[in-house]
Amino acid sequence: MSDHHGNVAPLGVFDSGLGGLTVVHALRELLPQENLIYLGDTARVPYGTRSADTVVKYARGCARILVERGVKALVIACNTVSAVAIEVLRAELDLPVIGVVEPGAEAAVVAMARLAQTEPGPLGCVGVLGTAGTIASGAYSRAVSKINTRLEVVGQPAPLLVPLVEEGWLDGQVPELAVRRYVGPLIERGARVVVLGCTHYPLLRPVIERVAEDIAGRTVPIIDGAAATALAVSQLMRSDHIEPNGAGIRATLDLLVTDLPASFASVAQRFLAESLPSVAQIDI
Amino acid sequence: MSDHHGNVAPLGVFDSGLGGLTVVHALRELLPQENLIYLGDTARVPYGTRSADTVVKYARGCARILVERGVKALVIACNTVSAVAIEVLRAELDLPVIGVVEPGAEAAVVAMARLAQTEPGPLGCVGVLGTAGTIASGAYSRAVSKINTRLEVVGQPAPLLVPLVEEGWLDGQVPELAVRRYVGPLIERGARVVVLGCTHYPLLRPVIERVAEDIAGRTVPIIDGAAATALAVSQLMRSDHIEPNGAGIRATLDLLVTDLPASFASVAQRFLAESLPSVAQIDI
Repeated sequence: MSDHHGNVAPLGVFDSGLGGLTVVHALRELLPQENLIYLGDTARVPYGTRSADTVVKYARGCARILVERGVKALVIACNTVSAVAIEVLRAELDLPVIGVVEPGAEAAVVAMARLAQTEPGPLGCVGVLGTAGTIASGAYSRAVSKINTRLEVVGQPAPLLVPLVEEGWLDGQVPELAVRRYVGPLIERGARVVVLGCTHYPLLRPVIERVAEDIAGRTVPIIDGAAATALAVSQLMRSDHIEPNGAGIRATLDLLVTDLPASFASVAQRFLAESLPSVAQIDI
Repeated sequence: MSDHHGNVAPLGVFDSGLGGLTVVHALRELLPQENLIYLGDTARVPYGTRSADTVVKYARGCARILVERGVKALVIACNTVSAVAIEVLRAELDLPVIGVVEPGAEAAVVAMARLAQTEPGPLGCVGVLGTAGTIASGAYSRAVSKINTRLEVVGQPAPLLVPLVEEGWLDGQVPELAVRRYVGPLIERGARVVVLGCTHYPLLRPVIERVAEDIAGRTVPIIDGAAATALAVSQLMRSDHIEPNGAGIRATLDLLVTDLPASFASVAQRFLAESLPSVAQIDI
């Protein structure tokens, strides 16, 4: 079904807040013709510190809003929701659901395989930084072992990194010390790559990269799931025969939040490298 | 109305999370015979980053739960709610409502008056550390000027302090640097006392005290509203003829949360200096 311009249904993307805009950015790069609706649940952010039951409840609410707006597929642009609620949403919803954990895990496995070709001897394991909820779920371990049963995953909750990003405190001594506190144990436990298991962390990527290299004494590949997720969405659209939007259409980007649209718009500018459309507030 | 032991209705206390337990602790010290019900809205914490409208909506939900349980007065043990929602709750509810901002402001005015007796010359102003919501509301300015119209108030949002307390990162370089970033501007703008305008901050009090003294070059009194609030509750009970619980009764303490009762219980131990009763989870 499309209108006379060839406009079909949009992709729906949601996150607990604004971190998921890194995924929107990657989707806009890879699939520029697709209409997108993004929902950030800013009235209940953060999800990463909450119980799995509460995250599932909140995720259902977000999904319902996007489904009511007729999206053709659902992209969970939040690691915590992808880690604890994706199976429930897949079971309950009658549309394709894709999260950020599986693509991120796949990218990590690929990076490890690349390292194995150049480095002799035992390679070490995959390190994951994430929220308390994501790490406690073990979702990255499960996703990695579905691809390669021999690869081990070590996880480290990094609760201070989200507040640092939201405060805009992205360089200097405090982010450096906080990152060191979290990345140190990962490297000591043998991590050879570090997955940014939260959509806020890419903004701290330079610090994480530098600290990891400093502790490990060699380059440590940093895995950002956003680009991998966009690629997975594109693959899913082909494999599930989801109708793409008409080529050459100027795609729309609708931004919805549950609280504070103005401050969302100002911080979102940091995440999206394009001028922002207006942000609407909805009730949840 | 009391049962045959002289047990009357409990006091209701609520907060966005567990910071309000510092107020519970002060109430248990001052009014040990009073039964208390505490509600921490851990499914939606933090409130300090949200819009006033959303905080009012959430505060109504918390108040309703406590009113349904028959409390005789409502203590808002949260600076953000006290700052933006107390007038709405007072207008809508048919019972006495007391917050932490007014008692904290009063304690700050008293501390300034004490300094004025010993220090010659212009005294400076009252500094307030708080969440973005509390500082944006201007509630401390209004509360101080109701008592002393000549006293100026300067406020500083300190968004990283709550995550630091919840992470348990209470000493060392990172809390020191974070506190310095927030306390520095207050002292530079002339603050002579610093109000801890968030119930989480008392756990960082030693750092705040040391950093403030270091920057100011003299002792800076730190004002913690918890004790002042307990005193205000006791005064309110007398002035409003709220029936006290029977003397000599072993008072009850009921703890309710909207998410994660187990982790609440473990962190709450740091706030309350007594062995904790069980924590029940309720839906909101």
